[in-house]
Amino acid sequence: MKNILDGIEDVLLMGPGPSCVPPSVYEALSRKTLGHMDTYFIQIMDEIKIQLLHIMKTENYLTLPISGTGSAGMEASFVNLIEKDDSVLILINGVFGERMRDVASRLGAKVDSVEFEWGTPVDPEKVREKVSKGAYKMVAMIHAETSTGVRNPAEEVADILRNGESIYLLDAVTSLGGIEVATDAWGVDVLYSGTQKCLSCPPGLAPASFSKKALAVILNRKTKVPNWYLDMSLLSKYWEGRSRVYHHTAPINMNYALYQALYLIMEEGLENVFRRHLENHNKLVEGLEGLGLKMLVKPGHRLPMLNSVLVPEGVREDEVRAKLRTRYKIEIGGGLGPLAGKIWRIGLMGHTARAENVQRVLTALRETLRK
Amino acid sequence: MKNILDGIEDVLLMGPGPSCVPPSVYEALSRKTLGHMDTYFIQIMDEIKIQLLHIMKTENYLTLPISGTGSAGMEASFVNLIEKDDSVLILINGVFGERMRDVASRLGAKVDSVEFEWGTPVDPEKVREKVSKGAYKMVAMIHAETSTGVRNPAEEVADILRNGESIYLLDAVTSLGGIEVATDAWGVDVLYSGTQKCLSCPPGLAPASFSKKALAVILNRKTKVPNWYLDMSLLSKYWEGRSRVYHHTAPINMNYALYQALYLIMEEGLENVFRRHLENHNKLVEGLEGLGLKMLVKPGHRLPMLNSVLVPEGVREDEVRAKLRTRYKIEIGGGLGPLAGKIWRIGLMGHTARAENVQRVLTALRETLRK
Repeated sequence: MKNILDGIEDVLLMGPGPSCVPPSVYEALSRKTLGHMDTYFIQIMDEIKIQLLHIMKTENYLTLPISGTGSAGMEASFVNLIEKDDSVLILINGVFGERMRDVASRLGAKVDSVEFEWGTPVDPEKVREKVSKGAYKMVAMIHAETSTGVRNPAEEVADILRNGESIYLLDAVTSLGGIEVATDAWGVDVLYSGTQKCLSCPPGLAPASFSKKALAVILNRKTKVPNWYLDMSLLSKYWEGRSRVYHHTAPINMNYALYQALYLIMEEGLENVFRRHLENHNKLVEGLEGLGLKMLVKPGHRLPMLNSVLVPEGVREDEVRAKLRTRYKIEIGGGLGPLAGKIWRIGLMGHTARAENVQRVLTALRETLRK
Repeated sequence: MKNILDGIEDVLLMGPGPSCVPPSVYEALSRKTLGHMDTYFIQIMDEIKIQLLHIMKTENYLTLPISGTGSAGMEASFVNLIEKDDSVLILINGVFGERMRDVASRLGAKVDSVEFEWGTPVDPEKVREKVSKGAYKMVAMIHAETSTGVRNPAEEVADILRNGESIYLLDAVTSLGGIEVATDAWGVDVLYSGTQKCLSCPPGLAPASFSKKALAVILNRKTKVPNWYLDMSLLSKYWEGRSRVYHHTAPINMNYALYQALYLIMEEGLENVFRRHLENHNKLVEGLEGLGLKMLVKPGHRLPMLNSVLVPEGVREDEVRAKLRTRYKIEIGGGLGPLAGKIWRIGLMGHTARAENVQRVLTALRETLRK
């Protein structure tokens, strides 16, 4: 009987995620499954929480990996904090900001937004102006807009919201583990990420953290969270306290892999990891410009882990990607929405952000574009 | 730096799930991660769908693994089918029936129920009576009530609902891959399961299937699904059709593991797998009765994969479980809700359902209870 898994190739993942997975994370993933109420597994959960507090730079009590991919983190964040008719301001400059609007609208929120051209960052002054005119229960932004490669000014928006009433929600799916994410120092109330970007773990979990202020909002809801699976007040009873209350069966092996991925980051040192991302990003940009290619995003607003490159005139971008994948076993991403066909997205996330990978993709692009 | 994963023991999982994972499924889990839009990964998705159609005995177009554990399958089933004020009838005889009521209530459904004593099955005659008096948009039942070990009469309820208007939702979390689940023949409209029970795969995915009738309800909703992450109409665009539309990043490696787990079941043959469950269940019950223990559930209503054993008078059930775990490296489960402290739950799910495991748990129980 043919087994399709036998044909899986070793592809260098340089797209918008998933990123390359270190060997020891694969090993962790395939360790023997324990029960979700096993005391040893609960010890592993406690260790993962300690790691997350460190990586997220927070002391938030309610910090845990949600049992779904990054988008489940977004869903959990909105569905726990927002009730019908709550006012939400969303800062939008790409696909994931748009997604936030969709998620919040479905929950009956009154969604207001400030929009910025895709490829440019959120302008804090426009946010200040908007916030001064309206009272929002929540202000939400994507830190690293994976669809464009733009780094949004998380700290400047934090300064605007400081001492205000609004809950500050920051999507750190692509930023966490690649650039500074200072949850507590910035006063972020709700933060979530995904395992398959700079954490270098396969997709499947969404580490999330909720501040005391966010927790108070959750505990003072007028209605039950309309999502049993993602109800943080129930999940916290499984992740915290002396007597753990069964909620749903945690994805045990994915949690092993997350532990190992965070272990590697802490072993290398968070600042060293950030530096490695930045150095390889600089090498990549230099190399791309050496090939005559141009970046979508202006210097100063670029993400090191997600590099958007303008497709040169006359080049079929999908053919280049297909060639990279088949001939060179390299995955890079295409554009989304208004940027479809116009950019490539080259990821340097986590374990992918290494000099030999930068060289490999530059060589492959040079040879492919020459023809 | 100490690594907590090094202390993971090889535990024989004989609780209510997760179950033992075959070596080739662990291997599949740790295959090289591919991108979620990679053409080869899409071929794997297509193969998984073919496998699910076979195992679930259905031709449903909308059949796919949901990116969360079994409870995410329950959540997805209700949130896609039910809108505010829809009437739902839930047949309850355990924790998971109760959970359905909670999930549906949170979505604003008008929930009616018929309740049965825990440890006894749903009585089709009471269902017939109830259904004859009210018009329900949906009737929902747990097939294998994991909290009690009762097999509910899925086929008899199907006969009552046949030719009616109601959507028939059947939770097959613990039944799929262990006993007959004939989705199409029974006229089940919404079916979901979990990977960590009789499919012998680590927890993390919820295979689900929706009939044409269910799909029509989804497509004719008055409101958008208030859950972006689990919106089946969006998910189907990623899982079906010529041009796959990115929704969320699928848990790639978990999908590999599911493929391999289903591959093993198909290789062994579904009927053989059912027979193996039944034979080992019979051996276990015989052995337990030989130890002077009694089963909670009457013969004829017992699940082969989940065996509820009454704790003898004067025995501290938690101490027995702790001893089994520490001395014998065997996990068995305790009771939930009104059955806490009163029963043990011994799982014979999937790869766990083998003669040597029955022997191991019987020996361990005999030695532990003797003292």
